[in-house]
Amino acid sequence: MSYNLLKGKRGIIFGALNEKSIAWQVAERAYEEGARFVLSNTETALRFGDTNKLAKKCKAEVIAADATNMDELEDLFKATMEKFGGKIDFILHSIAMSMNVRKSLAYDELNYDYFIKTIDISALSFHKVLQTARKLDAISDWGSVLAVSYVAAQRTLYRYNDMADAKAILESIARSFGYIYGRDKKIRINTLSQSPTPTTAGSGVKGFDGLVDFTERMSPLGNATAKECADFCVVLFSDLSRKITMQNIYHDGGFSSMGMSERAMIQYNKSLEVDELVNRITGMNEEGDK
Amino acid sequence: MSYNLLKGKRGIIFGALNEKSIAWQVAERAYEEGARFVLSNTETALRFGDTNKLAKKCKAEVIAADATNMDELEDLFKATMEKFGGKIDFILHSIAMSMNVRKSLAYDELNYDYFIKTIDISALSFHKVLQTARKLDAISDWGSVLAVSYVAAQRTLYRYNDMADAKAILESIARSFGYIYGRDKKIRINTLSQSPTPTTAGSGVKGFDGLVDFTERMSPLGNATAKECADFCVVLFSDLSRKITMQNIYHDGGFSSMGMSERAMIQYNKSLEVDELVNRITGMNEEGDK
Amino acid sequence: MSYNLLKGKRGIIFGALNEKSIAWQVAERAYEEGARFVLSNTETALRFGDTNKLAKKCKAEVIAADATNMDELEDLFKATMEKFGGKIDFILHSIAMSMNVRKSLAYDELNYDYFIKTIDISALSFHKVLQTARKLDAISDWGSVLAVSYVAAQRTLYRYNDMADAKAILESIARSFGYIYGRDKKIRINTLSQSPTPTTAGSGVKGFDGLVDFTERMSPLGNATAKECADFCVVLFSDLSRKITMQNIYHDGGFSSMGMSERAMIQYNKSLEVDELVNRITGMNEEGDK
Amino acid sequence: MSYNLLKGKRGIIFGALNEKSIAWQVAERAYEEGARFVLSNTETALRFGDTNKLAKKCKAEVIAADATNMDELEDLFKATMEKFGGKIDFILHSIAMSMNVRKSLAYDELNYDYFIKTIDISALSFHKVLQTARKLDAISDWGSVLAVSYVAAQRTLYRYNDMADAKAILESIARSFGYIYGRDKKIRINTLSQSPTPTTAGSGVKGFDGLVDFTERMSPLGNATAKECADFCVVLFSDLSRKITMQNIYHDGGFSSMGMSERAMIQYNKSLEVDELVNRITGMNEEGDK
Repeated sequence: MSYNLLKGKRGIIFGALNEKSIAWQVAERAYEEGARFVLSNTETALRFGDTNKLAKKCKAEVIAADATNMDELEDLFKATMEKFGGKIDFILHSIAMSMNVRKSLAYDELNYDYFIKTIDISALSFHKVLQTARKLDAISDWGSVLAVSYVAAQRTLYRYNDMADAKAILESIARSFGYIYGRDKKIRINTLSQSPTPTTAGSGVKGFDGLVDFTERMSPLGNATAKECADFCVVLFSDLSRKITMQNIYHDGGFSSMGMSERAMIQYNKSLEVDELVNRITGMNEEGDK
Repeated sequence: MSYNLLKGKRGIIFGALNEKSIAWQVAERAYEEGARFVLSNTETALRFGDTNKLAKKCKAEVIAADATNMDELEDLFKATMEKFGGKIDFILHSIAMSMNVRKSLAYDELNYDYFIKTIDISALSFHKVLQTARKLDAISDWGSVLAVSYVAAQRTLYRYNDMADAKAILESIARSFGYIYGRDKKIRINTLSQSPTPTTAGSGVKGFDGLVDFTERMSPLGNATAKECADFCVVLFSDLSRKITMQNIYHDGGFSSMGMSERAMIQYNKSLEVDELVNRITGMNEEGDK
Repeated sequence: MSYNLLKGKRGIIFGALNEKSIAWQVAERAYEEGARFVLSNTETALRFGDTNKLAKKCKAEVIAADATNMDELEDLFKATMEKFGGKIDFILHSIAMSMNVRKSLAYDELNYDYFIKTIDISALSFHKVLQTARKLDAISDWGSVLAVSYVAAQRTLYRYNDMADAKAILESIARSFGYIYGRDKKIRINTLSQSPTPTTAGSGVKGFDGLVDFTERMSPLGNATAKECADFCVVLFSDLSRKITMQNIYHDGGFSSMGMSERAMIQYNKSLEVDELVNRITGMNEEGDK
Repeated sequence: MSYNLLKGKRGIIFGALNEKSIAWQVAERAYEEGARFVLSNTETALRFGDTNKLAKKCKAEVIAADATNMDELEDLFKATMEKFGGKIDFILHSIAMSMNVRKSLAYDELNYDYFIKTIDISALSFHKVLQTARKLDAISDWGSVLAVSYVAAQRTLYRYNDMADAKAILESIARSFGYIYGRDKKIRINTLSQSPTPTTAGSGVKGFDGLVDFTERMSPLGNATAKECADFCVVLFSDLSRKITMQNIYHDGGFSSMGMSERAMIQYNKSLEVDELVNRITGMNEEGDK
């Protein structure tokens, strides 16, 4: 399926690690829609991931950069502009990492060095990308910048930890910088709040499977996949969404607007049945003990 | 417990049917805090409910009025002002009814006469109360008006039906009229979004128990009771909340800001266990059938 | 510009009165994108508007229907399905009218018959369209339904009156029915919250020009036009937005996420300068009077 | 005015610099309501501010602590618990500072060391206070913790800069930690989003006066003062708000729910009049130049 939505558009895509990555799917769809782009990731991610495979598939160049490092970002943007002979039109930021999550530290026993690192990698990097682009005047007028977020920015999810705070600040940066970049260059900046997605990062959160089952049953359309997410990201890079900015758009099958669905309630009620069963059997066992 | 928060204040409380009613609890607390008030309800509700018992306890007068009827509202306000020899200071609106819910009509098979009635009783009545008060200049400057709402105004809950739409418009009326009444008379208008509460009306929604179990486990502080709700309503009538207006305040133990709690997830996961058990036993049965 | 985004898709577009109408622009863009559709409006609107001109341009059929009348809606859907030989894929609802606004009744002096009419025409009609479609099973799986809303649903605007309440309930209906239709048929229902647009209806609100100037200066990308709105509506009808439902998406140049822009502040500050000037000159006049 | 709302309650109040401070006003009101508390601030703030004067007035002890320093926080909590012979019941966090704002760096030319410092002082300090309290089990069950926020967390305001991001993360921390502390100890954590207040910090933002004039005219009840804010903070520390947690409550005279008020629109329209006047006079000047 291709509509040539991104014909002639050039961009940078951050965070395509492997096929499960949202950024990977966005790259494939952007390629199908006629875009050319640079894939960027840290040296480490490039070593462990399959980014080069993707690059070959999409005729993209891979340029390593640590998105928390202003010098590397500057090099990346300069190399990209040189490659394309001009400005770019879109950027995808799909970067997130929390050592507090990885080390299973509870939210009331945070390591603050890790916390700052979570913020730096998962949110401030977005500002750094934007500030570098702005300084080098690297994005064409009416360009589009997008970061991937999650509903944890608005509602607390067990074990999501300091990533929730990172997503809150990520969305705030989209608004704050969206004002500046919109006013000055007509460039729009948004975040897309995606269903829980079984990426390498997402699956790292303990208890992820139960949560995915619950959100699947809560969402009238079911969870959105990375591929479906990519479809909509492509729209947000296209000329059809030019006047949307500073927004956080839920791409989640309806989950964010649900209080309780019939399917989730039926499932949940089974757990109450099993509690009663367990009570009865425990009672029978205790009878037998007498 | 009494702080004399409402000493010298007079009001009207709509919707106290029986002890389970939020309005009933508000009346008891308002009385403890030194307020005098009129209790109002429809003739029918007065016949079937215990409002007179409450009136005796709180030294309140009961005045029947259909809150959808402008003439009856005008009589009510005039009688109230005469009784108190002047303006009132607060109003509680705790009125809701949906024939579509009562008759278990699905949301895609609504009866539109019922729908208009749901809106009229559950939301427009709030506007009618305010418009009557405004016309008669019945509320003192810096007075406070409050309506009881529910999170269904923001998020869809299975079977809550057209009551969700009614709550959405109720909250909108609080904003729209809050602007007018604030600008002109410094009177504030808010809604309080309360946990699911086992009132006579609330319990009428099928599947209410499972939902209450779920929200209890999701909310870090557990569901808020009607008594606790009354504590906060009293605050919103007092002089300590004078600059809060046009707001919907969640009084729900934290539910509205939760995506998933550990307790709810553990409970939910039991339902997945029981599904596996059922699958295994069904498999064993089928084995036996061969 | 055409991407063939709606190739093979069929729909119904409500509310295209004249060239300024959002629905008109959506029709033109949908046509460019390969869609076929029926244009519907009330008899009166058809008599006074230019809908037939649009129909010719877009090779569309015009079918009169009062969207508050279930019989006429049923006839409309049946005729549409017959014409297309099957189900439709998208619906646009762009219908709004308030007699309270037209008659310049203040929000604290509402005529309640008008109020019910505002709700019926501007919001309940959306439910009626959906309920009719559901009953006739008139929309294909993964179809898309969209209604046009306004930020007044969340924030009070001087003189917007009971249209604010209508928009609040319109968005609530999108959520409530979105759950049902999503669960059962994978059909998504959203609202799009558009910048103030100088349509025939919009311009009817007194003081509209000053407001448009203000929102233009507040929005980093400026107000969104009806044409730009149409671009994004087309996206929401396409297969690229399949997992977005029950959402209200702001298409407003960033206005909804702004607290205060530099441009609006500079403009506003001039009004403070002129107040000072007036004070000085008034003072000079009074000096002269002595 | 005193209701004895906080009789027997003990707490810590951070951030009372001088009479204009919100924390100062909260301290005075908390004292009137029967609370005992420790006032805490950095050494520098204590040197330049009037905290000792306040301490005398409120019979409070002053204990210096840098709220970004875990050791100092631990000492503070231990000293406080020793002083009171037990746990405390409430905490007010009213701390904010941005070097990027102070140095008038534009949001697209941020100094990232300053940015991290803004986050650390204005938001992460809140987590550090909570984590220390949790570790020392320093807060009684059903205790209350509150931080002061601003609408910039949701909407971008010209020149508010990285403080917007800090407020966004501050509110996120309230939710994230509110879940933990609520679940484990029934302790509630909220933020209060206050009108722009002419504190020493607030006034530091350039263009503050014009903004305050605008919000005053937009808010139906006018801007909320620090004294009025203190009234409501006292409520949030009292037993009357026990089931409210993880919320951000707007205490702003209605500003956050306004799209456009009559008063602000009239004022704004004067600026359009003056533009026309200037155009005419400029035209006359140019006529003369010919």
